[in-house]
Amino acid sequence: MKQTPYPTAFSSRLFLFLTLWLLAFSTQAQKNKAAITRIDPTFWWVGMKDQNLQLLVYGPQAGTYSYSINHPGVTLVKAHKAENPNYAFLDLTIAPNTKPGSFTITGKNGNQKLTRKYELKARTQEPKGQGITSADLVYLVLPDRFSNGDPKNDKFKDMADTQANRNNPYLRHGGDIQGIQNHLNYFEELGVTALWLNPIIENNQPLTDEGGQMRSAYHGYAFTDHYQVDKRFGGNDAYKKLVQAAHAKGMKVVQDAVYNHVGINHWFIKDMPSKDWVHQFPTYTNTSHKFQPIIDPHGSKADWSIMMNGWFVPHMPDLNHDNKFVENYLIQHALWTVENFGVDAWRIDTYMYNEDQFMNRCNQALMNEYPNIHIFGESWVNNVIAQSRFTRNKIDFPFKSNQPGTLDFVLWTAMNDALNQKFGWDEGVSKVHQVLAQDAVYEEPMKLVTFMDNHDMNRYFSVVGEDFNKYKMGLTWMLTTRGIPSIYYGTEILMKNFKDPSDAEVRKDFPGGFTGDKENKFTAAGRNARENEAFNFVKTLANYRKDTPALHSGKLMQFVPQEGTYVYFRYDDQKTIMVATNTNDKEVDLKTERFAERIQGFTKAMNVLNSQTIGNLNSLKIPAKTAVVLELEK
Amino acid sequence: MKQTPYPTAFSSRLFLFLTLWLLAFSTQAQKNKAAITRIDPTFWWVGMKDQNLQLLVYGPQAGTYSYSINHPGVTLVKAHKAENPNYAFLDLTIAPNTKPGSFTITGKNGNQKLTRKYELKARTQEPKGQGITSADLVYLVLPDRFSNGDPKNDKFKDMADTQANRNNPYLRHGGDIQGIQNHLNYFEELGVTALWLNPIIENNQPLTDEGGQMRSAYHGYAFTDHYQVDKRFGGNDAYKKLVQAAHAKGMKVVQDAVYNHVGINHWFIKDMPSKDWVHQFPTYTNTSHKFQPIIDPHGSKADWSIMMNGWFVPHMPDLNHDNKFVENYLIQHALWTVENFGVDAWRIDTYMYNEDQFMNRCNQALMNEYPNIHIFGESWVNNVIAQSRFTRNKIDFPFKSNQPGTLDFVLWTAMNDALNQKFGWDEGVSKVHQVLAQDAVYEEPMKLVTFMDNHDMNRYFSVVGEDFNKYKMGLTWMLTTRGIPSIYYGTEILMKNFKDPSDAEVRKDFPGGFTGDKENKFTAAGRNARENEAFNFVKTLANYRKDTPALHSGKLMQFVPQEGTYVYFRYDDQKTIMVATNTNDKEVDLKTERFAERIQGFTKAMNVLNSQTIGNLNSLKIPAKTAVVLELEK
Repeated sequence: MKQTPYPTAFSSRLFLFLTLWLLAFSTQAQKNKAAITRIDPTFWWVGMKDQNLQLLVYGPQAGTYSYSINHPGVTLVKAHKAENPNYAFLDLTIAPNTKPGSFTITGKNGNQKLTRKYELKARTQEPKGQGITSADLVYLVLPDRFSNGDPKNDKFKDMADTQANRNNPYLRHGGDIQGIQNHLNYFEELGVTALWLNPIIENNQPLTDEGGQMRSAYHGYAFTDHYQVDKRFGGNDAYKKLVQAAHAKGMKVVQDAVYNHVGINHWFIKDMPSKDWVHQFPTYTNTSHKFQPIIDPHGSKADWSIMMNGWFVPHMPDLNHDNKFVENYLIQHALWTVENFGVDAWRIDTYMYNEDQFMNRCNQALMNEYPNIHIFGESWVNNVIAQSRFTRNKIDFPFKSNQPGTLDFVLWTAMNDALNQKFGWDEGVSKVHQVLAQDAVYEEPMKLVTFMDNHDMNRYFSVVGEDFNKYKMGLTWMLTTRGIPSIYYGTEILMKNFKDPSDAEVRKDFPGGFTGDKENKFTAAGRNARENEAFNFVKTLANYRKDTPALHSGKLMQFVPQEGTYVYFRYDDQKTIMVATNTNDKEVDLKTERFAERIQGFTKAMNVLNSQTIGNLNSLKIPAKTAVVLELEK
Repeated sequence: MKQTPYPTAFSSRLFLFLTLWLLAFSTQAQKNKAAITRIDPTFWWVGMKDQNLQLLVYGPQAGTYSYSINHPGVTLVKAHKAENPNYAFLDLTIAPNTKPGSFTITGKNGNQKLTRKYELKARTQEPKGQGITSADLVYLVLPDRFSNGDPKNDKFKDMADTQANRNNPYLRHGGDIQGIQNHLNYFEELGVTALWLNPIIENNQPLTDEGGQMRSAYHGYAFTDHYQVDKRFGGNDAYKKLVQAAHAKGMKVVQDAVYNHVGINHWFIKDMPSKDWVHQFPTYTNTSHKFQPIIDPHGSKADWSIMMNGWFVPHMPDLNHDNKFVENYLIQHALWTVENFGVDAWRIDTYMYNEDQFMNRCNQALMNEYPNIHIFGESWVNNVIAQSRFTRNKIDFPFKSNQPGTLDFVLWTAMNDALNQKFGWDEGVSKVHQVLAQDAVYEEPMKLVTFMDNHDMNRYFSVVGEDFNKYKMGLTWMLTTRGIPSIYYGTEILMKNFKDPSDAEVRKDFPGGFTGDKENKFTAAGRNARENEAFNFVKTLANYRKDTPALHSGKLMQFVPQEGTYVYFRYDDQKTIMVATNTNDKEVDLKTERFAERIQGFTKAMNVLNSQTIGNLNSLKIPAKTAVVLELEK
């Protein structure tokens, strides 16, 4: 989710809707016959480590009934009423030896009786929550814009947004999960080991008018039903199949999770369990996007509240994580998702906007159930102290995050500066050195997820001014320094553009992903020479990386940049890889004496990118704007 | 000491000198008759908390003698030989009940006998090591350039540099300690409560040729005899008198300590106790001034060594703190200085260039003996993580500093940006907010020493483009936000200039401090209207600050800057001070509703700078480029 300041224009109508919700449901309640229309989680499993389960029971007057369950091993510990009589929350425990199967949940209110089946499944032995590590290369896909594998699911008349139109950058284009699955071989060839999809959960949102432009919620960050993958992406089945197919290829899948907000069309927003289900202010209040009050010992509560509780946009209500039912709902959905689909890692949208204690509890629940899972949130900050606050860190902050990873926005900024600034004492590639030099504050810097761009940013190739040398240099850093690298779809075929005038510019369709495309850049034949050079560059380095543990778990040693050069090493007992960068516009003859600590004992090297042998390590000729990757040899 | 990159030009002759020292002393030893020519510390006290004392005994062949002491309470525990036979190091213990007085140290070598008197004094009850706190305002004086109180001590024929010439900015001008003492009333009027003098210890250095320009060591950072205040400044007596006079006025004195290096003319450099007394490389090696390897978990030893052990300039040898005799020498000198002169606080030059363990031991020795002393080093870094590394912090660094304070270079940079950048999301005054928002990593941010400039920087008034509004705005921040403020001499009378072409530009004589000066800006009559406005501005705010504990120990609460405005509060049980800044070029009408947390309950305010009452706090008209300081009233 982008976190740049959002225009504060809004429709007060949306707010009226929310503030009048009490009136709304009481009217509705009288109109409808009592019933249970849904229970979330939609089903569950026996044998989960956490034996607790809280069911959200929804339907007209469902909250006015007294519930009972008769199933061996399942105990209804407590039934909670909500402000809204259409909701009940049932606390169950599921004993370890409970048998899978269905049972009936029965509600009684005087002579009235409601029943609904609920299923406890057996857990599968399929891989799930495997995690991603610095051995992986993540590929971020925007499902609507990557490939249309099933033209039949592009649009539906029963959805709030009925359109799909590739000629309009702001509407849906029809890309889907099947389209992604169709290209697993492509990812594999490139050296990708994990797929990260922008959210695929139902966004049954109407078009929104943003500055006079009607836009669809194709980005996926406005959930309307947590338990449904959007049918325009293929629904739950397609997602499950994709995960299975990826796993069969040894690839992992990263889920893009959103806790901070939902779509205004979310079913539970239309009839909220309680007024405090979402954050509300006397008038519509946008988040400030100013994270400082979260970490500031001198910060004000007012600023904190606006940052945390203000809304991103008027059509995405901000969930209240202090509400225990909201909290349980979101945590259980997370567990359900991993268990049901088998996803391996968890990217968390707008991480720092979520309430701290909630976030830790949610992370812990996932880690308890799936000890290898990796979790890395999006916290778009501009300094290492702030960034470390949102992951496991070595700072005695009043609140300690348990998040294992985080997206590394600070290194992203530094790499941009390194590519585009003139070298200086604190400028250019000095910034990369200086950011990594602050790694002491992280518990595990190797678990940070690095990137050159994403769906909310100017595309990397445009950021470097379409300079192919810079393009390779930056990617080389990302693929060889510490952390878990990720690339945004199309980077490997030089997709370009700036966010101005809109995000849609950096979310173009992958050429060849859609029927009728004139070009197919999934194949070497469909790519021009330069695109093939780019693709092969990423492929070569990514596949070398894949097979080189020193680039995963090896130590990093970096040397102070000098005169526009920057040298670092990744090394373990098996291998020593030297990455020598020349950010200048002219070739340099780099003397290596000062790197003796790491070079000593080696006499030659293999240039990973062109497989050539370098017979003399005393000095290295490095072309302008180039990072060479050398595997040192005795 | 400035830490900008230094040209690596050097005289290899200087190095030859050092590397040939062994030959030198052995030759010398044969020439001279055995004798003890000095013992450091020059004297000591009974009743110090630390009962240990290590005497450096120096003189021809002094190291070839066996020593004995016969004085009740004093035990010679061990005598150490050095590589250089001209040195002995004697470890003494001084029992608590030892009586003050002199005794004889006797050395025997066969029939040869050496003797020298040594004195243990009684400790005085005079104040010493009182510390400075956020209740203080520190005034930094460059002694050579402030005022010449004793024209008889300007130059001496028996010193390596025999000149004093006010017409040459690179030579000595004759300012001295008496000149400073003569202006205690001036400091008092201004609201100053502590004087920090650039080093006053003897710098008996020859002129050095720096880029074709002959320069004197008037800055004071090249000690040649730790136990002598430079006689051109008035010697030990003048310094002691100054401290006593300052104390009599309730003012404190901060000593500028230098551990990293000494002058090449230091007596012990001319005949070093051992080769490892200073850091030496095969060829002259300048420090890189790159601090990152100190904090970098990925750093190299090579980079660390060049940063730490490389020299500042060829004429200032870098002391080796890993040598225990060096360490003891420096620590004892620190204790001796506080005890002898009564200084209250300790500013440490080039803090981060000193070896960590040494620095902690030295700090601890001072704090053990003088629990209230304040210590704040100079670590010229560009981020809060690095800065916190050199003071007590909340980060689990592999090495933990015990330094109570540090100079706040990061806030200095941010304030400069706030004054000179256009306001933006992360620019302008947002930077001040963002830096203070990172205070969670310091144990005690209130103990950081803040500043707008110093003797190594462009003068503040020039930095703000001689914009009087900006000048006042920045000083207002410094005098009202957290920390211990310090101002550089002449800031209050709008002294200006940039470091280019040389540091001498920002070290001009204070007008009126020297005989024959046409202007005397120590008096209102000698200052022009604008200078008086500046002086009175500082005076008003500093004296208000002096009397307002909320501005010392009160909490800070800052609000997120909006549209070029920045508001914060200092508050305690007694008072709430609101500082409301408008960095824009136009007046703003600031709505105060969002500051309710701190404003609630107050109905009016007194403008501290003009004593006017503001009757309505709902909105505040703040002129362009202005920070108003309001004492809120019920």
